[in-house]
Amino acid sequence: MTELYYFDNSATTLKKPLAVAEAVYRAIADGQLGNPARGSHTASLNALRLTESLRRKTAALFSVPDASNVAFTANATASLNLVLKGLLKPTDHIITTVTEHNAVLRPLYQLEEQGAALSFVGVDEFGTLLYPDFERLLRPDTRAVVVNHASNVTGNAADLERIGSYCRDHDLLFIVDASQSAGVLAIDMIGQHIDVLCFTGHKSLYGPQGTGGICLGDRPLVFVPVFTGGSGFHSFDKKYPAQMPTLFEAGTQNVHGLAGLSAGLDYIGQKGLAAIGRQLQELTLRFREQIKDIPGITIYGHFDESAARAPVVSVNLEGWDSGDLSDALFMDYGIAVRPGAHCAPLIHQAFGTEKIGMVRFSFSSFNTLEEIDYAAKALRSLAEEG
Amino acid sequence: MTELYYFDNSATTLKKPLAVAEAVYRAIADGQLGNPARGSHTASLNALRLTESLRRKTAALFSVPDASNVAFTANATASLNLVLKGLLKPTDHIITTVTEHNAVLRPLYQLEEQGAALSFVGVDEFGTLLYPDFERLLRPDTRAVVVNHASNVTGNAADLERIGSYCRDHDLLFIVDASQSAGVLAIDMIGQHIDVLCFTGHKSLYGPQGTGGICLGDRPLVFVPVFTGGSGFHSFDKKYPAQMPTLFEAGTQNVHGLAGLSAGLDYIGQKGLAAIGRQLQELTLRFREQIKDIPGITIYGHFDESAARAPVVSVNLEGWDSGDLSDALFMDYGIAVRPGAHCAPLIHQAFGTEKIGMVRFSFSSFNTLEEIDYAAKALRSLAEEG
Repeated sequence: MTELYYFDNSATTLKKPLAVAEAVYRAIADGQLGNPARGSHTASLNALRLTESLRRKTAALFSVPDASNVAFTANATASLNLVLKGLLKPTDHIITTVTEHNAVLRPLYQLEEQGAALSFVGVDEFGTLLYPDFERLLRPDTRAVVVNHASNVTGNAADLERIGSYCRDHDLLFIVDASQSAGVLAIDMIGQHIDVLCFTGHKSLYGPQGTGGICLGDRPLVFVPVFTGGSGFHSFDKKYPAQMPTLFEAGTQNVHGLAGLSAGLDYIGQKGLAAIGRQLQELTLRFREQIKDIPGITIYGHFDESAARAPVVSVNLEGWDSGDLSDALFMDYGIAVRPGAHCAPLIHQAFGTEKIGMVRFSFSSFNTLEEIDYAAKALRSLAEEG
Repeated sequence: MTELYYFDNSATTLKKPLAVAEAVYRAIADGQLGNPARGSHTASLNALRLTESLRRKTAALFSVPDASNVAFTANATASLNLVLKGLLKPTDHIITTVTEHNAVLRPLYQLEEQGAALSFVGVDEFGTLLYPDFERLLRPDTRAVVVNHASNVTGNAADLERIGSYCRDHDLLFIVDASQSAGVLAIDMIGQHIDVLCFTGHKSLYGPQGTGGICLGDRPLVFVPVFTGGSGFHSFDKKYPAQMPTLFEAGTQNVHGLAGLSAGLDYIGQKGLAAIGRQLQELTLRFREQIKDIPGITIYGHFDESAARAPVVSVNLEGWDSGDLSDALFMDYGIAVRPGAHCAPLIHQAFGTEKIGMVRFSFSSFNTLEEIDYAAKALRSLAEEG
């Protein structure tokens, strides 16, 4: 098998710390982890200890006010659907942005069909949010702001502190999609006034697929449970329990996967979030520096030494369709990237790339400077070949 | 660590074939499995090959008309919520049974709050469904029948062929919860006229937690997507694609877990579903035979050499609360069972065990005759001690 140069980490981090695979293996093979909510024997209690320990680790990473405010789900899409459909109402006005992924947009469009009103904060030519739009779009019936922390297309990070203060000033719910930023950028639910944080485990937290979660901030919120089922307690109530974390955890938890996510968080803790952030910034800026003068290249997004961002560089080459360029990178150089629309239609409309798409390079802490240089050279060669 | 005699397999099978743990380990550690819907490089295609192969295996096991009618979810609770809330309407009358788990009941109660009407088929003193109730409860507005294949409390299996024929005769949707039967009993979606089958991976299919699915039968059905998000195609549509299997697979799939589920299905294929069924029946009937004359014992359910059932034996001992009996079995004998209401409130009301609960023994193909004998002796000793 020829070597794969993997730069599709915004879709999923392919390379995980070995401890992640080992933790999941032991979780399944040792036969010690049962169903956390379904008994009082050791297997069940071991599972409960694992999930409770992971809640504490997650709470520490994101400054969640209390570990019981952390619930686990199957992925960020599940988290966002459970949150948006459980919290928002057909009578609400909701402010969101053109940088959102379809995991935010499509649930919001479903609410719109039921009567909710949506407004979109725009971006400038670099894909940076137009912050004055937040004030401009405010209405008396505005109830919530839904923002992704970092765009999966440009990598640009939103200023959560600024948006959080705005939300607190106007008594709006602040819901953040951290799919591209958890494990990359600092997230402080208390300091940034975040009411609900949705994250996935299998990207920059280096956990297995099938893991993710929802964290609630310090304001009490009332949710309608979108999923209901067995809760392991209050079994005779017709209503599903509304308390955290059960509220979002109907059915058997993926404890095997969570054992891996726990090892992923340990990896981040050992390397240090700030050190990972610096490493990813170095990879990203170096790649951008090496490709910026390639003839015919367009690079999307705002790049600045001092600005926080996710490790994403999306490009187009003049004369190339993004799918063709992606195929050529893979066939000729063994480079895995992702072409197309990246499930974020509105940012493509903003850049006028609905048809052509973009070729996205996205990095993880397992990528090396040598790989970056290799990818930059490959892109230059293809541009020169035409 | 003292040995654990694990008889809580209806909650989750603790012991898995080693190949399951190995498959998940390789899926994570080898770095060859990406995001199936999110690219065209090898990692993405490897993931796609795995999920497509597993759809075919699942379709073969349950006689699903087409492999593309198989979608994967996080667990049976997710499957049931996606199906019941996506398919049924507030104007429907729905027939279900008192044997259902809260994963069926609570979503149905939510529909009831929105205006749907529910009717419940009852059980006799052995917990067997009162089949004439199906005809008796039929109304002009009846749209669907929701039935669990095997009760998680008594292990009794429903006669799917009989209920399926009734549904076909009256043009009703037939939705089956196979949480306790998939991998234990034969399921034939075509022959049994099943329209929707919901299953979980981590119980008697021996897969990892975090896996499950939905299979559709041969009649075309229209669902409202309960979860929406990125689909990897048609990204510019405001609506989430309604075609299978994408319909139920918003967000990144748990391919790591599905690699394990695939190994679980291989285990069932190698042992043979019928052979597993015979083994479990032998364990179950032997246990019941050995405990049936214990003074003060009550055994719930219908036991018969010829009747299909799940490997569950729920009991009570006179003078014991089910929680205390479960604790004594664990503390004195290292036996893991589950006490209480088992998230199935209506069957407890039928048996009058709302307060006392039941102690449930549930077996898997990894349990041995020796373990069964040990458990029976332990129960007898506790009964004699009082």
